[in-house]
Amino acid sequence: KCRLSLQTVTLIPGDGIGPEISVAVMKIFEAAKVPIQWEERNVTAIQGPGGRWMIPPDCKESMDRTLIGLKGPLKTPIAAGHPSMNLLLRKTFDLYANVRPCVSIEGYKTPYTDVDLVTIRENTEGEYSGIEHIIVDGVVQSIKLITEDASRRIAEYAFEYARNNQRNSVTAVHKANIMRMSDGLFLRKCREVAENFKDVKFTEMYLDTVCLNMVQDPTQFDVLVMPNLYGDILSDLCAGLIGGLGVTPSGNIGANGVAIFESVHGTAPDIAGLDMANPTALLLSAVMMLRHMGMHDYGKKIETACFDTIRDKKVLTGDLGGKSKCSEFTEEICRRVRDMD
Amino acid sequence: KCRLSLQTVTLIPGDGIGPEISVAVMKIFEAAKVPIQWEERNVTAIQGPGGRWMIPPDCKESMDRTLIGLKGPLKTPIAAGHPSMNLLLRKTFDLYANVRPCVSIEGYKTPYTDVDLVTIRENTEGEYSGIEHIIVDGVVQSIKLITEDASRRIAEYAFEYARNNQRNSVTAVHKANIMRMSDGLFLRKCREVAENFKDVKFTEMYLDTVCLNMVQDPTQFDVLVMPNLYGDILSDLCAGLIGGLGVTPSGNIGANGVAIFESVHGTAPDIAGLDMANPTALLLSAVMMLRHMGMHDYGKKIETACFDTIRDKKVLTGDLGGKSKCSEFTEEICRRVRDMD
Ligand SMILES: CC(C)[C@H](C(=O)O)[C@@H](O)C(=O)O
Ligand SMILES: CC(C)[C@H](C(=O)O)[C@@H](O)C(=O)O
Repeated sequence: KCRLSLQTVTLIPGDGIGPEISVAVMKIFEAAKVPIQWEERNVTAIQGPGGRWMIPPDCKESMDRTLIGLKGPLKTPIAAGHPSMNLLLRKTFDLYANVRPCVSIEGYKTPYTDVDLVTIRENTEGEYSGIEHIIVDGVVQSIKLITEDASRRIAEYAFEYARNNQRNSVTAVHKANIMRMSDGLFLRKCREVAENFKDVKFTEMYLDTVCLNMVQDPTQFDVLVMPNLYGDILSDLCAGLIGGLGVTPSGNIGANGVAIFESVHGTAPDIAGLDMANPTALLLSAVMMLRHMGMHDYGKKIETACFDTIRDKKVLTGDLGGKSKCSEFTEEICRRVRDMD
Repeated sequence: KCRLSLQTVTLIPGDGIGPEISVAVMKIFEAAKVPIQWEERNVTAIQGPGGRWMIPPDCKESMDRTLIGLKGPLKTPIAAGHPSMNLLLRKTFDLYANVRPCVSIEGYKTPYTDVDLVTIRENTEGEYSGIEHIIVDGVVQSIKLITEDASRRIAEYAFEYARNNQRNSVTAVHKANIMRMSDGLFLRKCREVAENFKDVKFTEMYLDTVCLNMVQDPTQFDVLVMPNLYGDILSDLCAGLIGGLGVTPSGNIGANGVAIFESVHGTAPDIAGLDMANPTALLLSAVMMLRHMGMHDYGKKIETACFDTIRDKKVLTGDLGGKSKCSEFTEEICRRVRDMD
């Protein structure tokens, strides 16, 4: 194969266990002979002209060129005034849709079976506007900003996602009974967009009702679309249903094909460097990435090898209930990938 | 017993199944010989001078005198501009703390056992401020208002609740990583109040993390305190863990002993009048009310009779998995209450 034809992906290994699980993913991709090459970049917030926080120029340049990123966990800034790199990345590349498929993993026991849903979160505005004021001493307000454009855009993304992924219904999650104007606007846009997708069923539900129904019977849900904060909450709740952030993939999607896929768990500094980490979330995020890039067969192969390994229960990392090292778990997936040839 | 010595409670039966489940509660109170008398009041929103929405004067007058209310479900206003009566009641009597104990009910199977936690929700401000603006066409903002006074007040309530109810820990639920000023203020007040309650363990957790941990292992939580919207969400989520709104009690507490206890399920118009409703949520709310009034023995007796009936599984309403009528379920609880004498 001609090396020039290989597509490049920007790899941001991240902090803590980030580098080890990134190595695991690279090994599995190699075993599967995925025709991509990695371009590694580190991100730490730096201050540009006028004190504005930005991601390092070489990372920005790489992403601008490759359009596709895979990212491990980044440590949360502790110093006041430092921005969250996760938020800065979403902002820099206008990654407006956060997509998290939550699918029950056979063999990994939780109180729920047959969960198969996708949360689609508006990723750019809402409660994350960052606009806050002190009105008078002891009285503070935060502004939730909802725009017609961002609401329409995310609604369209959700319906297109449903259509392209053979899903039947989209539920808009809101509190328009309380935030009549802001959530009202979001909901109106969802309704309008629904008109153009008659093949996809559309329903609306209050956020509190979704939470209640979700823990009682998650199988009733399919694609859910919602403003930023509600997505933050619901995506974590749903991850909990299938086993937590260690097994949940995530993608941040922008316009014109730009996207960053990421594991959303923490950096686990306590086990960093000890070959104990579970690479599943990053690997499944990388599988989402492959599908986004149109490499469905490679995606399927790796996903199958990963799920087979988990179902088989013989080689599992500690958090999955086993005693194996990260490298052993990785090697087991590689072996299965190779066996599929 | 001298009739004059009986304490009076304002009873707001509510809409739909409200009247039937109210009758059920009254019958059980009678069987238990609870020394209170009921004063029934209806509420529908009326417009006062200047178009301001208010609750009917005779209901206001009754509550101002009795200080204690028990309320069935009220139908959600459908006409635009009409206020939610639930919100209007909370506002009228400054019921600043919404308290929902979520305890697993033996014999009523859900994916979780041994849930035993209490959500304490700030009930007066936050995202429920009702302040919203159109900035320009297609751009809307909602204001989340957090004050020092309301934050301190709810934090104090939570810690006092923990201390008075033999609970060990209070967790403040927040998103101060995103809403640094508003949730930051809320969190700061919780920390300050915690200093005065050294006997109660204090922890802080992000709302998304709470949701994730909650569905994985709710037994790790005890008392949780949070701003308005987060409480709306978490209280419903937790109700889901133990079997839904049909079995979850709720209390809205104000200053100087004022309080309204309520079932938070809907009015179930489809089964209204058919003697099929489940009075458990209203009954357990009435038990909370008895404890609030210091009548612990009566509360215990009724609660025990209710839980015994559910555990026994012989006489249950349809939603609880049985075939009995509301009146039969009620009579079974009455029988058990009488048998305890
Ligand atoms: C890291 C944090 C700022 C972020 C958020 O609140 O959105 C995280 O919880 C997430 O869901 O990606
Ligand atoms: C009825 C509705 C306005 C209310 C709320 O959103 O607070 C309800 O969901 C609740 O939890 O009491």
